[in-house]
Amino acid sequence: MAVPERTEGGRRLPRVGFVGAGQLARMCCEAASALGIDTIVLASSPDDAAVSVASEVVLGSPTDPTALHELAARSDVVTFDHELVDLDAVRALESAGRCVHPSSAALEAAVDKALQRRRFAAAGLAVPEFIILDSDRDSDLAALRAFAERLDRVPVVKAARGGYDGRGVVIASRLDQAAGAVAAWRESGAVVVAEAPIEFLTELAALVVRRAGGDTVAYRAVQTTQVDGVCREVLVPGGLSEATSKEAGALAARAAELVGAVGVMAVELFETDTGLLVNEVALRPHNSGHWTIEGATTSQFENHLRAVLDLPLGATALTARAVATVNVFGGASGILDDASLALALSEPRARLHLYGKAPRPGRKLGHVTVLGDDADEAARVAWRAAAALGTPVPAAAGATR
Amino acid sequence: MAVPERTEGGRRLPRVGFVGAGQLARMCCEAASALGIDTIVLASSPDDAAVSVASEVVLGSPTDPTALHELAARSDVVTFDHELVDLDAVRALESAGRCVHPSSAALEAAVDKALQRRRFAAAGLAVPEFIILDSDRDSDLAALRAFAERLDRVPVVKAARGGYDGRGVVIASRLDQAAGAVAAWRESGAVVVAEAPIEFLTELAALVVRRAGGDTVAYRAVQTTQVDGVCREVLVPGGLSEATSKEAGALAARAAELVGAVGVMAVELFETDTGLLVNEVALRPHNSGHWTIEGATTSQFENHLRAVLDLPLGATALTARAVATVNVFGGASGILDDASLALALSEPRARLHLYGKAPRPGRKLGHVTVLGDDADEAARVAWRAAAALGTPVPAAAGATR
Repeated sequence: MAVPERTEGGRRLPRVGFVGAGQLARMCCEAASALGIDTIVLASSPDDAAVSVASEVVLGSPTDPTALHELAARSDVVTFDHELVDLDAVRALESAGRCVHPSSAALEAAVDKALQRRRFAAAGLAVPEFIILDSDRDSDLAALRAFAERLDRVPVVKAARGGYDGRGVVIASRLDQAAGAVAAWRESGAVVVAEAPIEFLTELAALVVRRAGGDTVAYRAVQTTQVDGVCREVLVPGGLSEATSKEAGALAARAAELVGAVGVMAVELFETDTGLLVNEVALRPHNSGHWTIEGATTSQFENHLRAVLDLPLGATALTARAVATVNVFGGASGILDDASLALALSEPRARLHLYGKAPRPGRKLGHVTVLGDDADEAARVAWRAAAALGTPVPAAAGATR
Repeated sequence: MAVPERTEGGRRLPRVGFVGAGQLARMCCEAASALGIDTIVLASSPDDAAVSVASEVVLGSPTDPTALHELAARSDVVTFDHELVDLDAVRALESAGRCVHPSSAALEAAVDKALQRRRFAAAGLAVPEFIILDSDRDSDLAALRAFAERLDRVPVVKAARGGYDGRGVVIASRLDQAAGAVAAWRESGAVVVAEAPIEFLTELAALVVRRAGGDTVAYRAVQTTQVDGVCREVLVPGGLSEATSKEAGALAARAAELVGAVGVMAVELFETDTGLLVNEVALRPHNSGHWTIEGATTSQFENHLRAVLDLPLGATALTARAVATVNVFGGASGILDDASLALALSEPRARLHLYGKAPRPGRKLGHVTVLGDDADEAARVAWRAAAALGTPVPAAAGATR
C-alpha cells in the first residue's frame, strides 16, 4: 500500500498515529503542531475528543486489525491513547514491520495486572502483597480465604485486565463480597489479582519519559487525590518531600526499563509507613501529568511525541514553586454553557483545558491548572474554576481548604 | 444565508473567524481548542500556516467582499491575522450587522500611518516629529527639503499604507534618495509620512489587550532587536526598567482606547534621551508578544480570542524572571530537515514553534522561546536552537554574547 506523502510547507512531516482519540490524543495533537509534527487518530466516533484537532482521522474500532493496519500505514510510528487494545492485533502490526511505541510486549505489563505484579515483584520492586487467582473455582476461593486469614483483612480484588478509573476493582468490607466478585470474574475467564489493602499516607504518581533510543527523563512526583477510584486533584509538590519524589522517580525509571516502555510511563504509588509501594502503571500520557502543560518546561504530551519519534527529550523542570490541577466533570445539569465558561475564565490565573466532550453528569470534560507559590492556594483557585464549569466539589476538596 | 450550527460534544462552540491564515492565526487556533473555541480562517492558499490547525477554512482573498461575507456568516466574530485588508470591505461587513473586532475605524489607525501620527499627536502622545506629504509633486518635495533643513538630517520616509516588516520605509543617507522614494510613492497615489530619524537607546514594544466590554490588561514591555526592519530577538525584561515598562504599558493602553482597539494591540516604541516615543502600532497579536506563550500566565493569542469574544481576560504576569524569543528564518540552503529539528530539540529548554511554512531563505519560519533567570543567557540558548534550524545569526546577536 502506498503511503501518501503529507507535507506542510514543502517539508515532509514526522507523522504519529494514535490508537484511540480521547483527551490524551487530543492534548498530544495540540502539542504537535508547534513542532511541525503531523497527527492521525483512530477514532471510534466522529465525536471523539481528538477528532477536531488531529491532522487526519481514521474511523474504526481500536481492536479492528484492518483499521489498525490503515492507521499504521499512514504513520511513522503508532502509539496509544488508551490501553483497551487487542495485543494480538498490535503484535500483528509489529510482525508487519510497523513501528509501534510502546511495543506489545511493554503494553502487556500495563494491561495485565497479574503479569505486572509478578514481574515487578520478581525484579524486587516493592508492590502490595498479592496472590494470583487463575485456577478452578474452589481452589481460587480457598486461596482467597487463606490469603484473607493470613492478612487478617478482606483483600482488594482486581480483574487482571480491562480495569480503568476504578472499574474492575472491588474494595469490599466483607469477604463474601470479594469472593462474589472473584467468582464472577473467574466465570467470565478473567484472571484475578487479590492483594493486601494498603493503609497509605499519601497517593502519589511518578511520570517518566523514555525515548526509543533509551534516554529517560523524570518529572517531579505529584500527590494525587482519588475519589471512588477517579483522580480529582493533583498537587505539585503537595505533601511530597523532594527525597520521596526522587525515590518515586527512580522507581518509575526502573519500572520503565523493566517493561521496555517507550513514551510516557506513569507509575501510581502509595506512600506508607514502611516506604513506597507500586500500585498501577500506564504506558501513555496520564491524568496525573496534565499539570506539566504549564507547570513544566516541556509537557508530557510533547515529550511523549518526542520519545516515540526518538527525538531528544525536553526539560522537565518545574516552572513554578507549586502547581494544582483539578479535573472538570459534568455536573447534575449536564450543561456547559457560555455563562459557565465566562465564570470559569473570570479566575484570571486559571488555565482551562476542555476536551470537547458532551457534558454528561459525572463525565470527565477537562481540567484546570493553576500555578502559584503554594499548592493549596493554587488548588483553591482551580476548584473555583472547576466548580464554575459544573464540577461537583467533594467535601474534602480544595474549595473548603 | 443559514449559519451551520457547529457543535463539539453537544455544546455550540463560540466561533472566531480570521481574515488571513498566517502564523498569528495559527497560534490563535492552537490556543483555541483548550478553551473549546472553534476557529475559521480565510486563507489565500491551502499552504497558509493556519490551514492545518483551524477548525474550518474558507479559501479566498482577504480583500474579496464575497469571501469576507462567507467568513463572517460562519463566525460569531471576525478578527484579523494581518492588516492588509480593504477597509471598505470591512465596513460593508459592519453595515451588514456582522461583529468585527477590531472595527474598521480602529483598523484605519493601524493601517494609515499618516492618520495615526496625526491622531496620536493631537491627543498628546509623544511621536517622532513628522510632516505629511499628500500634495502635488513640487510642493511635497519642497516640504521635504524644508523639513530636512529644519531637522538638519535626512528624514525617514514611509508610505502611509501597506508597509510591513520594514517594507514601505526608506532610511536614506542622502536627501535625493529620500526624495526619490517620496516621488515614486506619491506618483502611485500613496500618502507619505516624513519624520525625524530617532536616535534611540532601546527599541521596545508594549502589548495591551482590550476586551469588547472595555477592560484592558497590559503585558510587561519588552526590548526588541530589529535588523533591516525585521524583528530578530525579543528580550523580557531586557534592558528595560520596570518604570519604563509601566510607562510604555500606560501609553499603549491610552493608544488602544484612543483608536477603540479590541483584541491585542502592540505599540512599538523608541526609548530616547528625552523619553518614550510611539513608533508604530498593530491591532493584532504581534511578533513582539510570542514570548507570552510560555512567559506569561495567559498568552497574547488566548487573550486575543477572549477579548474579541468579550470573555474575561487572563492574567498577564511573567512566569519566569527572564524570557528570550528569537525568530527562526530560512537559511541559505532553504532546507529544514529532521536532523536540524533533532539538533534544535537537543537544547532541552528551547521551546520550538514552527509555523508550517515552506523553508525559503530569509522567510520567517517560526520562533524559539527560552525562560530563565537572565535574558542574555536565555537568548544564547534560543539562538543556538534557531541556528540549528538554519537561521542566519547576525553578528550582534546572542550567539556572540
